Amino acid sequence: MTPAADHRSASGARTGAAPADPFGWLTARAEVRRRAGLVRVLRPRAADSAHLDLAGNDYLGLARHPEVTRAAADAALRWGAGSTGSRLVTGSTELHARLEAELAEFCGFEAALVFATGYAANLAAVTALSGPDALIVSDEANHASLIDGCRLARARRLVVPHRDPEAVGKALDGHPGSALVVTDSVFSVDGDAAPLAGLAEVCRTAGAALLVDDAHGLGVLGAGGRGLPASVGLAGAPGVVATVTLSKALGAQGGAVLGPAPVIEHLVNSARTFIFDTGLAPAAVGGALAALRLLRREPERAERARQVASLLHHGVTAAGLVSARPDACVLSVRAPCPESAVRWAADCRVAGVAVGCFRPPSVPDGISRLRLSARADLTDREVARAVDVIAGAAPEGAKALASKAG
Amino acid sequence: MTPAADHRSASGARTGAAPADPFGWLTARAEVRRRAGLVRVLRPRAADSAHLDLAGNDYLGLARHPEVTRAAADAALRWGAGSTGSRLVTGSTELHARLEAELAEFCGFEAALVFATGYAANLAAVTALSGPDALIVSDEANHASLIDGCRLARARRLVVPHRDPEAVGKALDGHPGSALVVTDSVFSVDGDAAPLAGLAEVCRTAGAALLVDDAHGLGVLGAGGRGLPASVGLAGAPGVVATVTLSKALGAQGGAVLGPAPVIEHLVNSARTFIFDTGLAPAAVGGALAALRLLRREPERAERARQVASLLHHGVTAAGLVSARPDACVLSVRAPCPESAVRWAADCRVAGVAVGCFRPPSVPDGISRLRLSARADLTDREVARAVDVIAGAAPEGAKALASKAG
Ligand SMILES: Cc1ncc(COP(=O)(O)O)c(C=O)c1O
Ligand SMILES: Cc1ncc(COP(=O)(O)O)c(C=O)c1O
Repeated sequence: MTPAADHRSASGARTGAAPADPFGWLTARAEVRRRAGLVRVLRPRAADSAHLDLAGNDYLGLARHPEVTRAAADAALRWGAGSTGSRLVTGSTELHARLEAELAEFCGFEAALVFATGYAANLAAVTALSGPDALIVSDEANHASLIDGCRLARARRLVVPHRDPEAVGKALDGHPGSALVVTDSVFSVDGDAAPLAGLAEVCRTAGAALLVDDAHGLGVLGAGGRGLPASVGLAGAPGVVATVTLSKALGAQGGAVLGPAPVIEHLVNSARTFIFDTGLAPAAVGGALAALRLLRREPERAERARQVASLLHHGVTAAGLVSARPDACVLSVRAPCPESAVRWAADCRVAGVAVGCFRPPSVPDGISRLRLSARADLTDREVARAVDVIAGAAPEGAKALASKAG
Repeated sequence: MTPAADHRSASGARTGAAPADPFGWLTARAEVRRRAGLVRVLRPRAADSAHLDLAGNDYLGLARHPEVTRAAADAALRWGAGSTGSRLVTGSTELHARLEAELAEFCGFEAALVFATGYAANLAAVTALSGPDALIVSDEANHASLIDGCRLARARRLVVPHRDPEAVGKALDGHPGSALVVTDSVFSVDGDAAPLAGLAEVCRTAGAALLVDDAHGLGVLGAGGRGLPASVGLAGAPGVVATVTLSKALGAQGGAVLGPAPVIEHLVNSARTFIFDTGLAPAAVGGALAALRLLRREPERAERARQVASLLHHGVTAAGLVSARPDACVLSVRAPCPESAVRWAADCRVAGVAVGCFRPPSVPDGISRLRLSARADLTDREVARAVDVIAGAAPEGAKALASKAG
C-alpha cells in the first residue's frame, strides 16, 4: 500500500503493509486529538509565578514552606542528591526509616513502607496483596495507578459501580479464594469520598482485605489530617491497608503503603516497584518528614484546608456553576465541552488564577471539568477573588448545565 | 476448614474456606521465603558510612558531589520540595524544561520527557508506543519495568532469547501491524550489553521501532558518557527511542524518554505514568541537571568508570571467581546458593566493603550472585582492597564454580 512495502520486500523478510516510519501511526493519532480539541501542551512555570494557584495538590501550602524546603535542601546536602540504589541495596537511609516510623504512627498503622512515587506504592500494594487465586474488586472511578495495579495483578478483577458497598458485597459473595477490595479514599476527579465504613463492613463479612488509596485524604481529613481511614476508625484495623502520597498535602514526592507489619514485610520481599526501583531521593524524604512534623505541630492546617474547600464550593455554586460538595480539598466544576473547558481555564489564567482542566482521557465519564483544589494557606479574600475570576470567565454553557442539573 | 468459616457463614453471605484474617495467606509465603533462604531485610544506612561502596549505581560518584548536592538543595529552596501536581497541571517547571532540552541534546535525540522515576518512563514508553494491534518483542533478560510495561500494553508479546537479533528478526517476520522491539542497553544483572546494531538492522528491515533502556549506559558508555545508542550511531535515528534514569550515573532520581518530537508529544498526551503521576521533585531535577553539566565538563569520568569496571573484573577473575567481562559498570560474581551469597555479602560488609547480593526473584535464571558496580571516583588502591576483601570472603563453592565453568 505504501512505497515502504517494496523496500521491505526487497529484504526478503516481509511483504506486509506496515509503514516504513515505525512511528508513522502517531500522525493519525495526533490528528484525532487535534480534531477533538484534546491536545495537551506542557506549560513550564517560572519559580516566581504571580498566579493564585488552585491547580496543584499542595493542600496545606507546605511545598514551599521554608521549614519544608530547608529540610529538603539539608537532606540533599547530607545524604546526597539520590539514594543510589534499590531500597534493598543502598537506597534505604536512616532518614527513610524515620519517615516510615513517623508516618505509620501518625496515620495509626503498625508499619509503613516508602516508595519513589505514590503511583509505585499503588502498583505494589495491588499486585503484591492479591495472590494468583485472588479476586480484586475495584471502584469504577479509581485512580489510574490502582487500575494499572489491577491490570498487572494476576488475579480475577471485577469493576463495580462508584461508591457502592452493596455491589462490592455481591462481587465478593461466594468467591472461594482471597479477595482485595480497592478504592480511592477521595476520588481524584470529583473529590467525593468513598463509603469506607460500608466497604469495611462488607469486607469483614466476606473475609476480604480492604486497600484504601488515601492520596487526597492524608493531611486533610481526620483529626489533624490523619486521613480518612483514621477518621472512620479503620487505621490499624486487621485486613486494612492504606496507601498515601508524599506529593500532595506533604508537599514533596513519593508514596507509602501503611498496614500490618507482615504486609509490609511481604511488600519488601515481593513488590516489583519496591525491589526494582531506586529508593526515593533523600530531599523528598526530608521534605515530607518536615511537612509531617509541621502538620503535627499545627493540626489546624487540615481544618483550614477543608474550610477553604467549602468556601470555594459555596462561591462557585452561588455563581450558578455545577460543582458537587467536596469531601476534601478537590472540587470539580463542569464545563460544556473540552474546548470550552480549555478556554475557560486559559481565561482564568489570564486573569491571574491557575485552575486545572480535566478532559478525556483524564476523566472517567468523558465530561470535561475545571478542577479546583483548596489550599490551607489561602485567605478568605483570595478565595473570593478566585471565585470572581472563575465565575466571570465561565462560558454560557456552564450555567446552562446548572439549570439542567438542578 | 477453619473456624473462620463458621464466623462467615453466620453472616449468611459465605460458606467458603477463606481465612478470617484477610492477610493470613502471607504467613505461609513468609515461611516459604524463610526456608529458601530468601528473606530480605531493610538495612538503613547512616549518612557517614565508612564502607567502600560497590553496591549502589552511582557510577560517576556524583550523588554526593558538592556541585550536585548544592544544585539539588538550591532547587528545593527555589522551586519547592515537590512539584505540586501532574506535569500537565502545575508539575512542569522551567527547570524540568531545561533538563529535558540539555538531556536530549547531550544524548543526541530530538526531544526528551522527564518522569518521576525511570520505572515510570519505561512503563510509559512501552505502553504508549505499542498500539492495540502491535507486537512487542522483548529480550528475556529485560528489566522488571520493561516487563511490567509489556504486561500493561494491550499488544501481543513475544519474549525472545537473550541478546539474539536473529530471534528478534524471526519474531517480527510476517507481523502485519506495528511492532516494537524492547531491550535493556546494559542488562542490570550481569552487565552485558545488547547487540544494538544488530537489533537496529532487523528493526529497519521489518519496519519495527526499537526501544532501548539505557539506564546503565548513560554516563558510562559512548563518547563522554552519551550512552550506548549514541556510541553505535543510533541516537536520533528514525524509529529509535531510548529511556534513561536520572538515578544512576546522574546521581539523582527520575527517568526520561528520548526520541523524535512526535513520540514525545504522543507520550505527553497518552502515557498514563506521565499524565497521572506527580512531576519529578525540583531537587532531583536540579541535581540531575548539575550532574549532566559536570559530565559535559569532565567527560573523562565516563572512561574512568569503565576502567574501574575492568580492573574489578580482572581482580576477581584472577582470584578464581566467576564473572563475565563487564560491558559497562555492572559486574556479577556467581555464588553457589542464595544462603552463601548472603553470607558472602555480609562478610564483605564486615570487612568494610558493601556489595550487592542478587537472589531469586531478582535474577532471571535463579542463580544467586554478588553484584558489584564500578565507580569513577574509586582509586586503584580502593579497587585492589575491594578485590582482596571479596576474594578473601569467597565461599569454597564460588571457586569450584569457576573450575566447572572453565
Ligand atoms: C488518587 C491518587 N492516587 C495516587 C496518585 C499517584 O501519586 P503520585 O503522584 O505521588 O505518584 C495520585 C496522583 O498523582 C492520585 O490522585
Ligand atoms: C535497566 C533498568 N531500567 C530501569 C530502572 C528503573 O529506574 P529507576 O530506578 O530510576 O526508576 C532500573 C533500575 O532501577 C534499571 O536497572
